[in-house]
Amino acid sequence: MKKGILLVLIMISVVAFTLQKKTRVIFFGDSITELGVKPGGYVNRVDSMCKVEGKGSSFDFTGSGISGNKVYDLYLRMEEDVLAKNPDVVVIYVGVNDVWHKTLLGTGTDPDKFEKFYLAILKKLKEKNIKAVLCTPAVVGEKTDMSNPLDGDINRYSNMIRDIAKKNELPLIDLRKKFLDYELANNPENKEKDILTYDRVHMNAKGNQFLADAMWSTIRSLN
Amino acid sequence: MKKGILLVLIMISVVAFTLQKKTRVIFFGDSITELGVKPGGYVNRVDSMCKVEGKGSSFDFTGSGISGNKVYDLYLRMEEDVLAKNPDVVVIYVGVNDVWHKTLLGTGTDPDKFEKFYLAILKKLKEKNIKAVLCTPAVVGEKTDMSNPLDGDINRYSNMIRDIAKKNELPLIDLRKKFLDYELANNPENKEKDILTYDRVHMNAKGNQFLADAMWSTIRSLN
Amino acid sequence: MKKGILLVLIMISVVAFTLQKKTRVIFFGDSITELGVKPGGYVNRVDSMCKVEGKGSSFDFTGSGISGNKVYDLYLRMEEDVLAKNPDVVVIYVGVNDVWHKTLLGTGTDPDKFEKFYLAILKKLKEKNIKAVLCTPAVVGEKTDMSNPLDGDINRYSNMIRDIAKKNELPLIDLRKKFLDYELANNPENKEKDILTYDRVHMNAKGNQFLADAMWSTIRSLN
Amino acid sequence: MKKGILLVLIMISVVAFTLQKKTRVIFFGDSITELGVKPGGYVNRVDSMCKVEGKGSSFDFTGSGISGNKVYDLYLRMEEDVLAKNPDVVVIYVGVNDVWHKTLLGTGTDPDKFEKFYLAILKKLKEKNIKAVLCTPAVVGEKTDMSNPLDGDINRYSNMIRDIAKKNELPLIDLRKKFLDYELANNPENKEKDILTYDRVHMNAKGNQFLADAMWSTIRSLN
Repeated sequence: MKKGILLVLIMISVVAFTLQKKTRVIFFGDSITELGVKPGGYVNRVDSMCKVEGKGSSFDFTGSGISGNKVYDLYLRMEEDVLAKNPDVVVIYVGVNDVWHKTLLGTGTDPDKFEKFYLAILKKLKEKNIKAVLCTPAVVGEKTDMSNPLDGDINRYSNMIRDIAKKNELPLIDLRKKFLDYELANNPENKEKDILTYDRVHMNAKGNQFLADAMWSTIRSLN
Repeated sequence: MKKGILLVLIMISVVAFTLQKKTRVIFFGDSITELGVKPGGYVNRVDSMCKVEGKGSSFDFTGSGISGNKVYDLYLRMEEDVLAKNPDVVVIYVGVNDVWHKTLLGTGTDPDKFEKFYLAILKKLKEKNIKAVLCTPAVVGEKTDMSNPLDGDINRYSNMIRDIAKKNELPLIDLRKKFLDYELANNPENKEKDILTYDRVHMNAKGNQFLADAMWSTIRSLN
Repeated sequence: MKKGILLVLIMISVVAFTLQKKTRVIFFGDSITELGVKPGGYVNRVDSMCKVEGKGSSFDFTGSGISGNKVYDLYLRMEEDVLAKNPDVVVIYVGVNDVWHKTLLGTGTDPDKFEKFYLAILKKLKEKNIKAVLCTPAVVGEKTDMSNPLDGDINRYSNMIRDIAKKNELPLIDLRKKFLDYELANNPENKEKDILTYDRVHMNAKGNQFLADAMWSTIRSLN
Repeated sequence: MKKGILLVLIMISVVAFTLQKKTRVIFFGDSITELGVKPGGYVNRVDSMCKVEGKGSSFDFTGSGISGNKVYDLYLRMEEDVLAKNPDVVVIYVGVNDVWHKTLLGTGTDPDKFEKFYLAILKKLKEKNIKAVLCTPAVVGEKTDMSNPLDGDINRYSNMIRDIAKKNELPLIDLRKKFLDYELANNPENKEKDILTYDRVHMNAKGNQFLADAMWSTIRSLN
């Protein structure tokens, strides 16, 4: 009987040890992340890449994206959708709607409020000892000559996120820069979509893979 | 010596009892409330009216208003500015900027988000057993023929607040209705300002007194 | 042979006389008028009503509506689409997009510019001795409690058109007022559409008939 | 007596010949041009530069700028303010408000309408055999890293003007490009104003001289 108990304890330990080793990653964002958990989406692709490298037992990936979300929407739902799930890492990928909705609906986010809510999210994560990974918003329009109507404002908000990452010494996945570099090399016709997005904002297959590459490259090095 | 200690304990008890009786009220809002704590402001006037009625020992009033605040700004700062102060009553007076900033800055609040954050504030107050008093936004423009550009949207958000009050059985100070009734009777020239506001939004002396009357009439009956 | 010539001349005179008697009416506007020339549209209905009354030989109706048109678009195309066609009467029906596009696209029309272009259109018509008939914009949303988001601004622009009609002693078809009166009587559930419109803005069958009634009632009395 | 008449005729001819030689230039635009006719403004500076080069008898410069003007405002007032004055050259300098007012007031100009009105202006000038010179809008914000909020949209409208100039074989003063080049070289701190503007949009002394240099360099070569 004692042996039985010992065995159970060992098994529990092994399981616990195995579980312990899994780094729980939540991708926290808007419609791009909501679509990211669909087949072919970037979250799924990160998961596949991870498994291909034989690290499937080390990571657990969840996408928590809701269409139309701005930074304060993330703040509002972070208790329930993030903290309650005890993640180790949260990848914050937000900003497109904060800029876009200014002209689309009159309900974008003031720059000072954007920073304030962003920092409030980081504070809550820090309190729980959760690692935050920051992303700049990629594109609203894929033209390469900075003539997408929102390019200026997207760049402004990206600069804010870069500054926040720097000041708080947090890892940054600079999607904005990566996308622009890619577009300059691969969009010779200066098209506004159909390079990495299908509608100027949301990712096509190539875009999801591009996101997955960028995400995985940073996340795998966190462990 | 023992008598001395007893006396002190009695005094402390009396003071504590007196303090206990004071209902702590926080007016929680935007620039209208920020201005409300200035001399002649509505918060000060409520305080004076309360004292004139000999109820100065029963109430303690604080104004917590910040210019430009929208519903999600209240949510963000409620821990620090409201909950930390252990109020008994919080008068929520917000909505003007949520509508106005749509056209002023492109950064207003979507109706569904307005409701969501409003309910999130109420939930936090309820958890702490704090009584919430709801206000509809008064005016953006004082014309009486419903031709102030934002009248329709202000009415829409007022309807949302009325519904929230009703569903949650919370006291409502329907400033929107009170102001419109007053304007219809007292603005025969259909002026856009200078009746109760000096700039279409912020209160002149008459407006602050009008607010104070409306607020005090509801608050005094809460005790 | 001489008799033949005489006969031809008489016939030409008769035809000319008949043509002369026809009052040429152009409905000049936006998508509501563009749809008004489709089967069931208000322009067709006016034409039918006219014929039913046996006045088909007295009137000729044309609809010149282009989706998205604002007051300055009418001004830009009036030479080609109106003046070149030598109408006797032009019914100007514009204003919805001037207000709506402010929040939809950021490209509405400033109130002072609205008046300026409106007056410039009237001036050009007057120079050609063409009778102008003015219309207020009907609705953007059919709620009856003035809580459609754009109600205030629609009322403001309607007031401007009413003033212009009055000052210039021009016939006014006050669609705004007529629609509101109808909605108050026939929209007890305070629905935002499906009373006279199918989408808050564009007319369903009932709405087109309502428009036609209002239009025809004024136009028939012009002759 | 006959000799007297001959003398007068000769004099008239000489004067006429002299007058004929003056190229009448109108700068047609918004507040930047309205300020351009003030002391130190770019129109005055062009005039001075012209005179310094001893070409004062060859050119006559007028500034016709009105604050807040967009492309359709120019179109509306071109009969009175431009054509009535029989200019030889019209420098069209517009676009800032067409973009800026989208977010400032909700009353900017749709891109397709911008092009349409721009072409309508050019058509009217061509009919009168007036030479058009096109300008791209310079800046709304002087940051050099394309993070001024409106950079993208300003670039888009500049591209439209460049295309129009090319297709219509008209001289282009590419202020947008010239300003960006200057800023890259002379704004190392990435300031949003105080390099060539005092408020991100309107020219300081240096900006007015910069404009004048660009304008004069093109205009002097027209003769």
